[in-house]
Formats: sequence, structure tokens, C-alpha cells
Amino acid sequence: MALDLATLPTMDVAGRAPRLREALADAGCDGLLVTNLTNVRYLTGFTGSAALLLVMPDELVFVTDGRYRDQAALELGAGGVPAAIAVGRTSDEQRDHLQRPAKALRTIGLEAEDVTWAQQQRFADDWFPHADLVATGGVVEQLRQVKDAGEVARLEAACGIADDALATVRHRLTEGPTESEFALELEWEMRRAGAEAPSFDTIVASGPNGARPHHRAGTRRIEEGDLVVIDFGALVDGYHSDMTRTVMVGEPSATQARMYEVVHASQAAGVAAVRAGVTVKDVDEACRAVIREAGWEDLFIHGTGHGVGLDIHEAPRVSFSADATLADGHVVTVEPGVYLAEHGGVRIEDTVVVTPEGSRTLTRAPRGRDA
Amino acid sequence: MALDLATLPTMDVAGRAPRLREALADAGCDGLLVTNLTNVRYLTGFTGSAALLLVMPDELVFVTDGRYRDQAALELGAGGVPAAIAVGRTSDEQRDHLQRPAKALRTIGLEAEDVTWAQQQRFADDWFPHADLVATGGVVEQLRQVKDAGEVARLEAACGIADDALATVRHRLTEGPTESEFALELEWEMRRAGAEAPSFDTIVASGPNGARPHHRAGTRRIEEGDLVVIDFGALVDGYHSDMTRTVMVGEPSATQARMYEVVHASQAAGVAAVRAGVTVKDVDEACRAVIREAGWEDLFIHGTGHGVGLDIHEAPRVSFSADATLADGHVVTVEPGVYLAEHGGVRIEDTVVVTPEGSRTLTRAPRGRDA
Repeated sequence: MALDLATLPTMDVAGRAPRLREALADAGCDGLLVTNLTNVRYLTGFTGSAALLLVMPDELVFVTDGRYRDQAALELGAGGVPAAIAVGRTSDEQRDHLQRPAKALRTIGLEAEDVTWAQQQRFADDWFPHADLVATGGVVEQLRQVKDAGEVARLEAACGIADDALATVRHRLTEGPTESEFALELEWEMRRAGAEAPSFDTIVASGPNGARPHHRAGTRRIEEGDLVVIDFGALVDGYHSDMTRTVMVGEPSATQARMYEVVHASQAAGVAAVRAGVTVKDVDEACRAVIREAGWEDLFIHGTGHGVGLDIHEAPRVSFSADATLADGHVVTVEPGVYLAEHGGVRIEDTVVVTPEGSRTLTRAPRGRDA
Repeated sequence: MALDLATLPTMDVAGRAPRLREALADAGCDGLLVTNLTNVRYLTGFTGSAALLLVMPDELVFVTDGRYRDQAALELGAGGVPAAIAVGRTSDEQRDHLQRPAKALRTIGLEAEDVTWAQQQRFADDWFPHADLVATGGVVEQLRQVKDAGEVARLEAACGIADDALATVRHRLTEGPTESEFALELEWEMRRAGAEAPSFDTIVASGPNGARPHHRAGTRRIEEGDLVVIDFGALVDGYHSDMTRTVMVGEPSATQARMYEVVHASQAAGVAAVRAGVTVKDVDEACRAVIREAGWEDLFIHGTGHGVGLDIHEAPRVSFSADATLADGHVVTVEPGVYLAEHGGVRIEDTVVVTPEGSRTLTRAPRGRDA
């Protein structure tokens, strides 16, 4: 049965801009012009493809174009977001809508990793010549790390759709499909169950392809003796799920069996290490220690995981090279793997919600290796 | 049968950077740092997700990260692109690879509509402090307008896949599917035939939804009396197809029949106006005149078309508000429509290659309105 979004708990969209305001002083600005559309969506609920949001100390100004007049009113209204909505058919009209309120600001933050140089020049020379423009980074992304109950419910629904899709099509791995055919079957099942889209290009990496972590899905036919790495997810109301399972087609060789066993233990150790207050380095090390113990440290050639939400990859990064501490409500993946040119790859990945006591796993498909 | 790319004519990838060099003086720079990945692909054949290309007067320097070492060598080699390929595992290493050759440049162009403000600051302060950075716009995009035979063959293959998919599933419109179900069937058929993906989110806009040009595909069930606007395409080797057909389910009302007739005549007039040397305003006016004559000018609420290639929307724009002249080898859409709240929408769109004498139409699905 297809998913009904109306049955999910609501998200506290209106509470987000007030929390953002508390971060503006540290970011060195009186107000923030949000250009990143995912951040606009987070702060307002707006899902269209064109909008600017000016967050001021006691005002929110939302500007879009003529296509989105009704949709903006509907979506911002649904979340109870108290923004002034202005529609500008041209860039000049949009500028005029923002210029007036922005007069009250001496410093305006821009999202420097999102805004283009051309936009920044227009803002500096033409839109806000009176103000100092400040380059900010990750201000909204920091807030987005902690998910509320409505967000977790959406992630959980997306993970459930992926679980069910894999359960439905998993047996077909033994029928000799190509990687692309199997990927398409998975995507089809997720769409039928109510996913808006796959949350990224589905990876089906079989046999030797599994040893290349950036392989997607190709024309290779899956055969007896293959390890098959399946890394995929569903998109629900803008929220992404992310899960990897590795399935053995036929009987594993001794090396394949050991690869599976080691990664399985590594992944379980990583999940067991997750808890509010723990650093991401510690979670990475929990995974890495098991693989090191097996003599394969050099084969675990990527970080342990990443945050997941409105973006498939978002803060916090879970890696030996990252500095962050997990907090209640963070949602992260734990996904160690080993890759051996002659034997294939094994990766197991779950998406978990961080809690004060540990974590809750949202991806529940069986982790066993058999098809 | 699935498409075999090896049977298509090759593209002249290596000839592109030399043509770009001829445009650099007009752009006000000695060299251009290409950051837009679609432009990097155009100039080198590289399809990965991380690369920088420095185009200098007699040198090409291509920098990517460790994931893409082999792929870069393979893809640039396949096109015979004489670039020095450097791999930098970190941003600092990538900087070092570019800094040395860039010393020879006094002015370096950046793609100002692509590069972020944060990147521009890093380039100015840390990567290229010796040079003047120049904001350029659309330099590579200008070149990309004229397609070579290999590019046209890919666009034609993509259009053919879309034609065939619609032929296969069109009859199902009378079986009462939801818009999303029908969209999914279309996408499935395109993928089976070898499309990498749909070229954009498929639009299936039925009944009242058809009157909203930005509707995508939703849960509404298609029923007797609906006009159904179907706007979709396939992606083949990075090239996008784009086609719209409007199908009447059951018998049309007098107004629906007239809407269809007017748009059909308008679209045919637009295509007939296409020829090398004609302005995009003239093509737009050819479409618009027919709709004006019918008394519906206000219902044709968008431009007539756009270029299509490695991006689904690219130069030249075909509109009353654009200034461009069509040239041999341009590939553009012609897609007038009318939208009437109580009756639905009608839009018909073809993708055509501009020739000296007129045009050649790549989208060949029947334009008739019957399901």
C-alpha cells in the first residue's frame, strides 16, 4: 500500500527560523540571506525551485517568482511560518522586495558555499550596496543535524520502503539479471510503495565491480560466486534513506566468507559505539579496529558514514578525519566495507538515530549474506 | 533491444578546447578555469563528479581526485584530448597542480555563474594570488550551442527511445492509471531501452492539472474527458531528449478540440519558421501569431522553446524576450501551449536540429490527439 504522508507526525517547521536567529551573532551578521533551496525548504517548508529567504532579527521575508505564488502561500501556511511572502516576476522586482527590509541590516550573511560569485557581485553592487556582505558557512546545516520527530518519521518511512523493496526483489539476484536490471526492479518497487524517487543513483556492484566503491550499476550480469553490493534508498517528503546490503550469490569462497564476517562485525561494533556525546572519530575507530584486527585496514578506503536528511550527505561526517560529537536526534549512517580486487566488495550500511543511551536503527532489512 | 553506444558516430571532443581558446580574448582573460562539470565533460569527455580544467593558450591541465585516476585517463584518452592529467587527493594538492602552470597567466577567467563565492575567495587569496580573476559568463555554453554529428546522433537516439516508450504505453491512458503510475511506466520503458535516466522529472498533467504548466505528476487518476499533457525525455550518454504530446482520453469537448487544433497549427508554424539565420524572436512570433489569431494570446504563458543537449535547458532560449539567431547545428525545442482552467492544457513539443534550409525533427511520436 502506498504511503500516506498525512499519517506521519508533523514537523516543527516554524520553530527553525527562531533557532537560526540565535546563531547569527556567532556567524558575524545581523541577518542571513538564504539561497540554498534545501535550507529554504528546511526553514519554510517550501518545495519549489526558486526562492530567497531573508532572515532578519524579527522578520522573515520570502521571495519567489510568479509560478510559485499559490504554492508558497500554501506550503508556508501549512507550517505556520510567519513570513512576508513577496512575488517578483523579474530579478529586479525580487531585489526591490528585499531591498526595503534589508535597509535595517548593517551586515548580511550569504551562504558562501552556495551563492555563486555572479550572485554575490549582484548582491554587493546592486541589491545591498549599503550593507557589508559576510561569507558564512554551514549555519543552517548545523541546525539541520538534529532531527525532530516529524523528520525522523519521514526518514523511517523512507527506510521502510527500501527494506520492503529489497525483500520483494532479493530472490531475483539468483536469476542472472544485469546490475542495471536489478537496480531498476528495486527502484520500481520503491516508487510503487510511494517513494518520490530513489534517494540517489542505485549502486549494484557485482563480482569484480564490487571492489570499486564508485561503481554504480552497469551491464554486467550477476552470476554464481558473486558478492553483490547493493547501496540504495528512497526519497519521502524530501527525506533520504540510505542502506547497503551485500548479498552472496551461491556459495562463498573462504575469503568471501571471511570478508563478510569481518565487515558484519565491524559494522555492528560501529553501531554499538553510537551514542550522544561520542565523537565521530570514536565511531569510526570502533569500525576500523575490527577490520585492522583482521589485517585488512588498508582495504577500508573510505570514512565510516555521514549524516542523512534533506540531503543524502549532510553533517555530521563520521570519519577519522572529522571533528564532531554526536548528539540526541542526529541521524547518521554506519557503513564500513572492504574491497578486494579478486574477490569483490563487502559493505554493510545502516541508518541510525542517535539517542542519549545509544541509537535506534531505521534500516531493518536482514543483514545476512544469503540471497 | 537496448541501445549500443558504440554504434553511434564519435564526437569531436578534442576539437572543442581549441575553439574555446579563440573565445578567450573576447572574454577578457588569458586562460579559463572551468569548474562547471557539464562544461568539463564537453571539453574533455570526463563524466565523473569532481574535476577542474584549466584552459591555457597552449596547454590543458585537468585535475581530479584519487577516485577518478583511471576513469580520467580512460575517458580523456578515448577522445584524444591532449591534457596533462593530475590527481590531487586533497584540495591543497589540487591547488599545487594548478598553481605552477597558472603562473604563466596574468588574468584567469572564472565561470561566475557556476563558481561559488567561497571558491572564488579561495582562488583569489590562496590558489592564484598573482593573477587577476575575471568574471566570465557563458563562454563554453556559447560553443555548446552548435552540435556535431556525434552529438546529434546521441540526441536522436534519446528522442527515439522516448518515441518508442510512448508508443508502447500510450494505450494505457484509457485504463485509468494515476498520473504517477503512467509516468513510471514511461520511465520504465525508457530505462529498458537503454536510457541512463529520464532526462527530467516526467510531467503527466491531466484534466485540471494540465492547466498548470508547473504540475509534475501526482495521484490524480486519469479519466474520460481529460486532456493529458505528457512532457518527458530520455538521457543517452549525457544528452537529453525533450518531447511533449497531449493526448485526449475519450471525446473532446468543442473547446478542447479547438485548443488542440490551434496549438497543433501553432507548433507546426513554429517548426516551419526554424532555419539557420532566423532569430529566436521570429520563431516565437510564428507560434504566437497563430494563437493570437485564435484569440488566446494570453493563454500562451511561456516562451516557445530552448536549446537542448548536455543540459535539458541550454542556450539558445527561443522567446520573444531573447536575442539570438539560430545557426546550423543548433538543437532547439518548439513547444507552444494554451492553458484553460476549466478545460485543461494542450502543449505540443518537438526537438529539432537547425539546418541551412530549415530543420530536421528528432522527436517523431504521432502528434495526433487520440489515445
